[in-house]
Amino acid sequence: MRVVKVPLADRTYRILIGRDLLPQLGVECAKHGFSRRCAVVSDRNVARFYADAALKSLVSAGFDPVLISVPAGETSKSLAMAGHCFARLAAARLERKSFVVALGGGVIGDLAGFVAAAYLRGIPFVQVPTSLLAQVDSSVGGKVGVNLPAGKNLVGAFYQPRFVLCDLSTLDTLPKREFRSGLAEVIKYGFIFDAALFRRLEKQMESLLTREEGTLAAVVSRCCAIKADVVAHDEKESGLRAILNFGHTIGHALEAVSGYGRFLHGEAISIGQVAAAHLSARQLGLPESDVNRIRTVLDRAGLPTTARLARSQSTKLLAAMRLDKKVSGGEVKFVLARRIGEVEHGHSVPDAAIKEAIERVSTFTARPV
Amino acid sequence: MRVVKVPLADRTYRILIGRDLLPQLGVECAKHGFSRRCAVVSDRNVARFYADAALKSLVSAGFDPVLISVPAGETSKSLAMAGHCFARLAAARLERKSFVVALGGGVIGDLAGFVAAAYLRGIPFVQVPTSLLAQVDSSVGGKVGVNLPAGKNLVGAFYQPRFVLCDLSTLDTLPKREFRSGLAEVIKYGFIFDAALFRRLEKQMESLLTREEGTLAAVVSRCCAIKADVVAHDEKESGLRAILNFGHTIGHALEAVSGYGRFLHGEAISIGQVAAAHLSARQLGLPESDVNRIRTVLDRAGLPTTARLARSQSTKLLAAMRLDKKVSGGEVKFVLARRIGEVEHGHSVPDAAIKEAIERVSTFTARPV
Repeated sequence: MRVVKVPLADRTYRILIGRDLLPQLGVECAKHGFSRRCAVVSDRNVARFYADAALKSLVSAGFDPVLISVPAGETSKSLAMAGHCFARLAAARLERKSFVVALGGGVIGDLAGFVAAAYLRGIPFVQVPTSLLAQVDSSVGGKVGVNLPAGKNLVGAFYQPRFVLCDLSTLDTLPKREFRSGLAEVIKYGFIFDAALFRRLEKQMESLLTREEGTLAAVVSRCCAIKADVVAHDEKESGLRAILNFGHTIGHALEAVSGYGRFLHGEAISIGQVAAAHLSARQLGLPESDVNRIRTVLDRAGLPTTARLARSQSTKLLAAMRLDKKVSGGEVKFVLARRIGEVEHGHSVPDAAIKEAIERVSTFTARPV
Repeated sequence: MRVVKVPLADRTYRILIGRDLLPQLGVECAKHGFSRRCAVVSDRNVARFYADAALKSLVSAGFDPVLISVPAGETSKSLAMAGHCFARLAAARLERKSFVVALGGGVIGDLAGFVAAAYLRGIPFVQVPTSLLAQVDSSVGGKVGVNLPAGKNLVGAFYQPRFVLCDLSTLDTLPKREFRSGLAEVIKYGFIFDAALFRRLEKQMESLLTREEGTLAAVVSRCCAIKADVVAHDEKESGLRAILNFGHTIGHALEAVSGYGRFLHGEAISIGQVAAAHLSARQLGLPESDVNRIRTVLDRAGLPTTARLARSQSTKLLAAMRLDKKVSGGEVKFVLARRIGEVEHGHSVPDAAIKEAIERVSTFTARPV
């Protein structure tokens, strides 16, 4: 088992990474002084495979868990679903020292985390991420929340888990497309922060795609360590943490304009990263060869690097970006790269440059995407 | 103008107390580096009197406010109403440095505070309490939230305002019953923390009931200072802060069982305090003369000290208490008094004693309350 520490003063916690960790969930929870009643929030796809093991482990350790299983998919990340969870927690009489376990991917972690953050003004929370995306990104760092009809993640909290149990075995049942979606964030870590990781991904993409145990453990641990490092320096995104949003401004807008569901998050972020690389070339002189390297590695990971868009949609993309949380003074700010492994946040970019970058990742059609 | 400081490290803020402060709202906000777009959340009763002045002051100071006016009353403190507010903030494109002004009583402060705490994972928040209850209690200390069908304040956050503007002139339009409801919390501060304040209330109740300026300013400031002191020592209610809940365990249950609306919060808390005083006499030897003094001063403030209950409802009261946030290990904990000005939190009390205390404040009827 590998352990990565997220150092955040009195909210410091550990990420436990390895195979076959789920049966240890109860024992790990018992180390934290939680009270007996607890809830496991999961989605129906994940619950089918792993809810029994999670519940059994908790019961063995003396806990009294209730399972809250919600429909799979982004639509569950809503205020209405949070309301449903709150009602279930109240019905099960969870108390201040009770806890919520998020068993699932990014949607479940964000939803369950927000529910834990707000129920009784905050009860303890444990992340058990079962997708690659959640393991390397969303389960670490304490950003939790739900979507509004007006945009993604517009409601939420900064709320750290007590620990993260990252069981690599749960990736065995992850559909190929979901796994590849997670690789978009893995590649992002290399591009924004760690040129050596980026080179490793270029070299070991095949073994990563076959989910080879050693490669996977090393890569997941390195990504968690990078995220922990960034979050420890800037928990509430007043500065540095913004670099984690590389590719996300255009990526989120793409998800919004295409109505959430056409693209998986990682797929939208893959296209967003290529667009951001183009912007970086134009604004900061990122070498064209580096733009090609990121496009190539995303492509080798089986991720899309272009989107089919109707002409009318590129205007909508700009409007969607202006609703992004990273907007300040009405202006959209971008994370841009100087070279692989080195990015800067807070860049203002002229609309014309954004449009040009969008054109570079678009193939235009008569029908909207 | 009197100023009370709430010392909370990097979240330290000031409570400004005096008459005719509302026209200063914009100027005060301008000191905090907020961005232009902002929202004023109010209820229709309060907005009728004070929204124009608040909006005008903000516009004069260069801000661009949107008014969100919700129906008056406890039913607006719901997740659905929070959802409505979130949608309005998104439509008005509030950003991370935008801010929300809560202009109203406790319901508005709790709702708007929760909305500010969760929108974009937290944007700045300003309290402009217009009821006595909000001025001395709910606007200070950062407890914000909404109700669930299962119970009051079950969802929320600890989220401190950037400052509190406590304009005593807004009490001029406060209905008599609401003013008296606020006095229940004023009396509580004396009883739990400050015997001198309690004696002052016994002496000056008549001048307080006529809202005499000097008495009111002195009493409101003292209550804010007590609350600030308690909150500074225990922001998240891990210990000392619980003393502020004196009378609230039975009071909240009374509100729940009678379906929210029969009693104003202060009225339920008034009865709850008398019941807690009886419990204190039985469990901690509080002198019967002190039980009488608190009953008398509440009575002189025009507050109820008994409730008409059907026999079946006292059982329901106990069940409602078990859903209270202060429950730990399934056990209801009480704040009890040794003498006036000195209380202790965390007391377990046998069910029989709770029932007896409820009987002491009840007159029984065939019909439920």
